[in-house]
Amino acid sequence: MHLGLVGLGKMGGNMALRIRRAGHTVTGFDHDPEVSDVADLAALVEALPSPRVVWVMVPSGEPTRATITELAGLLDAGDVIVEGGNSRWTDDIAHAEQLAADGIGYVDCGVSGGVWGLDNGYALMAGGSADDIAVVQPIFDALRPPGDSGFVHAGAVGAGHFSKMVHNGIEYAMMQAYAEGYELLQKADAVENVTDVLDSWREGTVVRSWLLDLLVKALQEAPDLDGIRGYAEDSGEGRWTVEAAIEHSVPMHVIASSLFARFTSRQDESPAMQAVAAMRQQFGGHAVRAAEEAGVDPADPV
Amino acid sequence: MHLGLVGLGKMGGNMALRIRRAGHTVTGFDHDPEVSDVADLAALVEALPSPRVVWVMVPSGEPTRATITELAGLLDAGDVIVEGGNSRWTDDIAHAEQLAADGIGYVDCGVSGGVWGLDNGYALMAGGSADDIAVVQPIFDALRPPGDSGFVHAGAVGAGHFSKMVHNGIEYAMMQAYAEGYELLQKADAVENVTDVLDSWREGTVVRSWLLDLLVKALQEAPDLDGIRGYAEDSGEGRWTVEAAIEHSVPMHVIASSLFARFTSRQDESPAMQAVAAMRQQFGGHAVRAAEEAGVDPADPV
Amino acid sequence: MHLGLVGLGKMGGNMALRIRRAGHTVTGFDHDPEVSDVADLAALVEALPSPRVVWVMVPSGEPTRATITELAGLLDAGDVIVEGGNSRWTDDIAHAEQLAADGIGYVDCGVSGGVWGLDNGYALMAGGSADDIAVVQPIFDALRPPGDSGFVHAGAVGAGHFSKMVHNGIEYAMMQAYAEGYELLQKADAVENVTDVLDSWREGTVVRSWLLDLLVKALQEAPDLDGIRGYAEDSGEGRWTVEAAIEHSVPMHVIASSLFARFTSRQDESPAMQAVAAMRQQFGGHAVRAAEEAGVDPADPV
Amino acid sequence: MHLGLVGLGKMGGNMALRIRRAGHTVTGFDHDPEVSDVADLAALVEALPSPRVVWVMVPSGEPTRATITELAGLLDAGDVIVEGGNSRWTDDIAHAEQLAADGIGYVDCGVSGGVWGLDNGYALMAGGSADDIAVVQPIFDALRPPGDSGFVHAGAVGAGHFSKMVHNGIEYAMMQAYAEGYELLQKADAVENVTDVLDSWREGTVVRSWLLDLLVKALQEAPDLDGIRGYAEDSGEGRWTVEAAIEHSVPMHVIASSLFARFTSRQDESPAMQAVAAMRQQFGGHAVRAAEEAGVDPADPV
Repeated sequence: MHLGLVGLGKMGGNMALRIRRAGHTVTGFDHDPEVSDVADLAALVEALPSPRVVWVMVPSGEPTRATITELAGLLDAGDVIVEGGNSRWTDDIAHAEQLAADGIGYVDCGVSGGVWGLDNGYALMAGGSADDIAVVQPIFDALRPPGDSGFVHAGAVGAGHFSKMVHNGIEYAMMQAYAEGYELLQKADAVENVTDVLDSWREGTVVRSWLLDLLVKALQEAPDLDGIRGYAEDSGEGRWTVEAAIEHSVPMHVIASSLFARFTSRQDESPAMQAVAAMRQQFGGHAVRAAEEAGVDPADPV
Repeated sequence: MHLGLVGLGKMGGNMALRIRRAGHTVTGFDHDPEVSDVADLAALVEALPSPRVVWVMVPSGEPTRATITELAGLLDAGDVIVEGGNSRWTDDIAHAEQLAADGIGYVDCGVSGGVWGLDNGYALMAGGSADDIAVVQPIFDALRPPGDSGFVHAGAVGAGHFSKMVHNGIEYAMMQAYAEGYELLQKADAVENVTDVLDSWREGTVVRSWLLDLLVKALQEAPDLDGIRGYAEDSGEGRWTVEAAIEHSVPMHVIASSLFARFTSRQDESPAMQAVAAMRQQFGGHAVRAAEEAGVDPADPV
Repeated sequence: MHLGLVGLGKMGGNMALRIRRAGHTVTGFDHDPEVSDVADLAALVEALPSPRVVWVMVPSGEPTRATITELAGLLDAGDVIVEGGNSRWTDDIAHAEQLAADGIGYVDCGVSGGVWGLDNGYALMAGGSADDIAVVQPIFDALRPPGDSGFVHAGAVGAGHFSKMVHNGIEYAMMQAYAEGYELLQKADAVENVTDVLDSWREGTVVRSWLLDLLVKALQEAPDLDGIRGYAEDSGEGRWTVEAAIEHSVPMHVIASSLFARFTSRQDESPAMQAVAAMRQQFGGHAVRAAEEAGVDPADPV
Repeated sequence: MHLGLVGLGKMGGNMALRIRRAGHTVTGFDHDPEVSDVADLAALVEALPSPRVVWVMVPSGEPTRATITELAGLLDAGDVIVEGGNSRWTDDIAHAEQLAADGIGYVDCGVSGGVWGLDNGYALMAGGSADDIAVVQPIFDALRPPGDSGFVHAGAVGAGHFSKMVHNGIEYAMMQAYAEGYELLQKADAVENVTDVLDSWREGTVVRSWLLDLLVKALQEAPDLDGIRGYAEDSGEGRWTVEAAIEHSVPMHVIASSLFARFTSRQDESPAMQAVAAMRQQFGGHAVRAAEEAGVDPADPV
């Protein structure tokens, strides 16, 4: 098969490599002319046989929207666009409607795997019509891991990114679970070598997982995680997961708390805790603040 | 009535003043000879008419235990000790058993009110037998606020401090509720003057409360809470409340989260969030870290 | 002043009464002809002197939107619409833009007070231009409580409902704080009469508030809350508060947990806890399920 | 090696089998004469060569304490007891002190693996002196999984059960993470076949784990988890984990929430949510309750 691939960054570049290894042809376009096979999207589209399949792998939001809009003007009825980035599932539905007017198919595909994907395969969650999925299937088969798992046609357009979104929400909470346990082991002094304990959990336990493998690897590279700042970004998917939970009245204490912990990790100062501190000061009044300076807890007893 | 009072710090000193204003006699003992009326506990006990009532108002834990043990050797059957500090309710039960052997009564009393207590009265939650409570009642009446509320005989020994403990747990969560709302108002820019909004809530709204009054006062004294560090201690009662919830299988998401937020506020670095950051780095491997330095989110898309 | 008021339900009807008591004239419209002063919105608009002020007090979402759209076709430049319902602040911004094209002013006003508002006054949080607010001010003054608090011009259009939204978010968490404390007191058996303890907190304590007054009143009317189902609806504002927190990266553990607790309260069965139970069953395999039936915990020890 | 094993239930019985498969001799005692090799603990001790090693595998708390106390009277200096049940790590320290007086060694060992342990090996976390551990090592080697992981000498006495405790706390939160994600997938209708999506995650994704394997297996056995009640017990370890976090001031939002979710799952009625419902009713007063019956939300607008 001959695939057009837009976006040849770390993810897109490795995916092109894996697809080619499987015997397919990939024509890639990237804004960086050093890695791009063609000059522009028009040239990409011209290079492909009908029905054309173009996989978009650029940052979500405006860049993805712009790419799809430009492709819409270049493709023909029967062609298919695969949005493999991190689009919100609601964007997918808008994209699909926009393209349907011209008879262009649309598949959204959540992709997991990071740099390991090149060798181990990428887990894929796809949304779209059975016909559109069938057109792309050879590429899915090239990208996915070798076993029975690692690919799903999750449902209609949006289902792929919805699945990937929930996957990421779960991921946040799993990471936070290990993180809280790690902190307790570190602080409690009951255990002599925390890394050894976590390492031992990698076989035979209930908590064994790929994330645990990563945590142990990180601890082996940086004992006590020295030099790693407790600062965690979040991609949009954790937020969307909680928003979807709110929309569907799903209690989501754990995933939401994991997201909030990331927010906290990025704050130099917490206005909320300033407010708590301010109220505590007010309990005692000015007179007691002197006591506080003298080492007495002003809230004791309140 | 003639009361013995041990501990003449900010709380004890003001309480002595309020009791005297009500026409009672107070003989106070404190380790600070400048404020103490007597040289030692023996002298305090000698100064009191039978049945003696001694109110203990010293830090909880060891100081309280030591004071009660010393008093146990000095008092007679029929005398009553009131523990008005912040003892854990389980300590009260131990104290009461210890004293019961000698026929000495024991009342535990949670006290709320801070520096406002002197003029407005102290809210009191007492635990003990009806007979012991009756002996102390004139002092309770002197200390409590003027209305119908502000005093309760909550149950047997321990019930007073248990009530006060739950009171403080609720207090933590109420403070956190205002704090989270305050932070959102600060961050969102939808509102021009956050202090004015909070001030307006002090009448006619569902969230009006004394804590809100304090928060508004703090904001009026320090606009945007400038100069107040987002650092909040916790007295033991919040912890005990969550431990009691665990013992009784009570879901306590909100109070526990408020306690944890205080823990977080006191951390210079969060080992848990270091672990999260470390796992995120591992997603991408070393290759991707270069990308990260170039401004690409390594977890996007993972 | 002469006000047009759309929506004469429990809230609108009482507000009309309070405005009239203050000496103003109110012409009201309601779909219920029994309570309506005029036949339709056109008649309402005709009845008002220029510049007309029309207060809309109908359910948020579609009903409010439809009312404002119809009024837009009837009003003239210089007239002002006050949206006093529970609109989302983002809707306000859309409404204001829609009306600005015709020179019609727009004020959004969050209203708190319930049935007590009639006698005690309604707390008001208003958003809009200073000019539009000034036109409505006599009505605000009639509705608000008598003291210095209870009214705020919170900022531009949307600021009123944004403030009310955050107010409600805080309200959820305060209610949950009392609720968790109440459950612990109920379960622990340390306290003899839970209602008496809560009642005693109404004076002199840190947790005294109007919500506490309500909880005590409820407990006095229904001891142990017998006959009251643990089922709590949520109006949209709690959800919007958490969504706004997510948008602004504000950690909101406590308010979010309070919202989730309401979601849980409405579930007959929890799919999440079915999943937890299912995983626990799998720990032990089929063999162990027999053991479980024999009273052995299959997860002990796992 | 010749091991004494007390407790031949599902766990102990399978462990005996695996140890024997490795070529060791096991003399087992159980209260059930049908499975016991000896009549009582005295006979068990007599059957063992010096230095004797006795592995205790009975329910934690009183049964474990009683067994260890009886063994203390039967064993000699140089013998070693292994407590392989679910004891709290603080109990281990008490046990070790009790036995040290007679020169009897003590090792605590957290064991994970369930019914899969027989064939796949049991993950072991051991605490004790290097000398005592060395004595037991052949048995640990027989029980553990074949790879490099699955066994750790975590530290001094107590470290084994402390590690297992934290393992279980993490386990709770991981299960809750999957559970919340599962519920959202179920409710949102964006995805056609939830089981297929979860199944696809088993390879190549960030959230792949043994627990995910179990959840997928459960869903394949019982589509939509029909027939499985959303009711989850907790063994003590989750509670102890949160208590240890409180002791060490570790923020533990996620693990604590997972524990609370299990508490909630076991409630027929929630007193906390009754309190929330009661306060909401009070907002509107009796008059509004009529409105509520007529379908109007009494808290709208409040």
